Amino acid sequence: MTTVGIDAVEIWTGNLKLDLPGTFAPQMGEDPEKYTKGLGLNASSFPDSYEDIVTMGANAAYRLMDRKGLEPEDIGRIDVATESAFDNSKPVSTYVAGCLEQVYEGDFHHANKGERKFACIAGTQSLDDAYNWIKAGRHRGRAAIVIATDTALYARGDAGEATQGAGAVAMLISEDPSLVELSIEQGYGSADETDFLKPNQQFPSVDGKRSVQVYLARMREALEDFESIAGDSHPDQYAYIPFHTPFPGMVRKAGLLGYRHMIRDTEIEDELAAEIGRQPRAEAFDDEEAFREALREYMDSLKETETYQDWYAKTIDPTLTLSREVGNWYTGSVHVARASVLKHGLENDLDLTGSKLLVGSYGSGAEAEIHAETIQEGWREEIAALNVDEQLAARYDLTWDDYEEIHDAHNHDMDVDIEPRTTPDAEFVFDGWGRMGERKYRFVE
Amino acid sequence: MTTVGIDAVEIWTGNLKLDLPGTFAPQMGEDPEKYTKGLGLNASSFPDSYEDIVTMGANAAYRLMDRKGLEPEDIGRIDVATESAFDNSKPVSTYVAGCLEQVYEGDFHHANKGERKFACIAGTQSLDDAYNWIKAGRHRGRAAIVIATDTALYARGDAGEATQGAGAVAMLISEDPSLVELSIEQGYGSADETDFLKPNQQFPSVDGKRSVQVYLARMREALEDFESIAGDSHPDQYAYIPFHTPFPGMVRKAGLLGYRHMIRDTEIEDELAAEIGRQPRAEAFDDEEAFREALREYMDSLKETETYQDWYAKTIDPTLTLSREVGNWYTGSVHVARASVLKHGLENDLDLTGSKLLVGSYGSGAEAEIHAETIQEGWREEIAALNVDEQLAARYDLTWDDYEEIHDAHNHDMDVDIEPRTTPDAEFVFDGWGRMGERKYRFVE
Repeated sequence: MTTVGIDAVEIWTGNLKLDLPGTFAPQMGEDPEKYTKGLGLNASSFPDSYEDIVTMGANAAYRLMDRKGLEPEDIGRIDVATESAFDNSKPVSTYVAGCLEQVYEGDFHHANKGERKFACIAGTQSLDDAYNWIKAGRHRGRAAIVIATDTALYARGDAGEATQGAGAVAMLISEDPSLVELSIEQGYGSADETDFLKPNQQFPSVDGKRSVQVYLARMREALEDFESIAGDSHPDQYAYIPFHTPFPGMVRKAGLLGYRHMIRDTEIEDELAAEIGRQPRAEAFDDEEAFREALREYMDSLKETETYQDWYAKTIDPTLTLSREVGNWYTGSVHVARASVLKHGLENDLDLTGSKLLVGSYGSGAEAEIHAETIQEGWREEIAALNVDEQLAARYDLTWDDYEEIHDAHNHDMDVDIEPRTTPDAEFVFDGWGRMGERKYRFVE
Repeated sequence: MTTVGIDAVEIWTGNLKLDLPGTFAPQMGEDPEKYTKGLGLNASSFPDSYEDIVTMGANAAYRLMDRKGLEPEDIGRIDVATESAFDNSKPVSTYVAGCLEQVYEGDFHHANKGERKFACIAGTQSLDDAYNWIKAGRHRGRAAIVIATDTALYARGDAGEATQGAGAVAMLISEDPSLVELSIEQGYGSADETDFLKPNQQFPSVDGKRSVQVYLARMREALEDFESIAGDSHPDQYAYIPFHTPFPGMVRKAGLLGYRHMIRDTEIEDELAAEIGRQPRAEAFDDEEAFREALREYMDSLKETETYQDWYAKTIDPTLTLSREVGNWYTGSVHVARASVLKHGLENDLDLTGSKLLVGSYGSGAEAEIHAETIQEGWREEIAALNVDEQLAARYDLTWDDYEEIHDAHNHDMDVDIEPRTTPDAEFVFDGWGRMGERKYRFVE
């Protein structure tokens, strides 16, 4: 049976950076630790005035194609996932293909282009579509490019303002992948929820508390669904568990929930019993509320155990390294988390070939998806080729005045023209509007 | 090898109707034949004030599930294709699932829900995703529901105003389908085009002339791509050729182009040579413009031949019956064309089992896709179950004043509350806004 999965990945961050403890916190009159410890964030990436979801996506895809020595005819499919689209009809993937056709001789005229929208989970859905397309035997030997690109901006003053971010992840999906093979098994947890919306508006309306509850409820449902076909999971099975990361603090909650679920009826629960007791079982309680309270107490105790903390430090914490520096990239976020752990493995010279990841994607509205991935032999070479650290270090550090201006410049309801803070270098840039209101792009050498 | 395709289809029209020759033409001061002959349209379907893309999609899906005796646990996937979304993050499929969960005991919590956007082609792309998901073996014996739903409204006074429409098509995609099997072969023709856009706006900006050229150019490219893997096509191969139908006049052009392409180097070209000569070949011309002019002349002559006209009357004209009465449904349009020909077959008591369709989908921006379908044994029973004629006959016939009011009521930039013209009957209806700006729905008995 052919293996199918992610052959290569590239990351493109917005060229600007907002320092949360240094620049944002003082203006908000808040303790910097509210952001660094509470949310777990040091900085957010922002797009400069010449950047948008198309330029970031095209730049990530170009790096990917260039590094892998691909030509347009090697690509049978370009799918873009975004919740920051600026057109209600024309998909971003056509703009991205148009950009790439400026720098390649060939064209993508026989490639299927698409766009998916479902809050932050659409990147993973597009990955799955590409996987299925190859498994179905419709790819004619070609690979797919999946791009998750977003400018995750909130209205000024919104509670979510500290969790903003902007960037793109491009992934090459192919047979015999070098990076990770995807499991055929998938688990879903999905319900019609009102936690995070953008009703005919650019910036989200968020019910923060509900949003956290829904994330956890749907993730648990997805894990149960995954286990119903892949068998019970155990913490030792997975080297890392990259989750969708709206902010690292959310993943701390998800990690604890996942661990509690996975250790039930295992030797780990038994070993912890002397210290914190066994997990409460619903059947032992007459009423739901008492059960939930007991579960909360168990989780509070579990969180303090060395066993859990060791597991968290090893399995979850390395997924958050990049996220801490870039904020929420919506559709790209879980794919940034995967890149984080593989970078961690490389930097610590770990032997990860054959190790497994459990990947937990999520989109408000709401749906969680869980699947497993097996790290492939070529992972080390692929991850060594990433230049994300250099990109992050090269970002322009916004002053507060810069930040206010750049936020306005990206607000669809404002007509603000500002000077860019950075100079584009060998990348696609936004180049003004055409006569039908279309956005135009060019490559800057 | 398992066959995969469309097991069943349901159509849900908007409950209102605009009579083009009777109501629209007099107000425009135009000859009614401009619409009936020129565009090929008699009427447009419109949504009443309690209808939108969610209600129409949910109503079509409910008819489908009810008629096929399905429960939520039989469905592993709900994909919605639309270019009329009212939220930039939350997908329509979650709203549709929420509606259906009001009338079923079970839920769709383990079904993957998605949304695709690419002008009018996203319905076919979603169909392909569902096909690939089953072929990839990820469906666990379940079927997929694909819904193409749109309110295709133009700004008042826009040249496209006469081609409006609103409705939904729901399709059940499964193994061993009763209606049509899809070919594994697909051809694509796609380019970064500026023919039809909705840049941060509800109503489209259209370059009408360019739009027609791009449709034809991409469709030809897709046919060539399809033939490169499926072999040359011949007019006799296909019982019907349903095309995306923005208006029937467009399909007349596509039909002629397709026929010219398919008869080249066949006995049909030879037989027609005495009457209209052979097709011009590019290699016989020194300059491109002269070749194109010769091609235009050949096409003009070809169109007048009895051979072509017989083929068109048999193969293309029956695809347009429903479209003439409902206008453009964007993502649903090509699927309405397929339903039209199968209805035609049923009404004329034709034996279509085993016959083939060539299906040409299109979305501005732009992409065309061509695949083949083989009509399955159960087609007669499935098509006999459609009640689209009753739905069309039951539509409320808008006066001009009604039309002006209802158009405003559906304009996102206006806050207009109007009395519905019809009374909902056993259907989902829009039921006002929630506190976060979400749209709410209920089932009316």
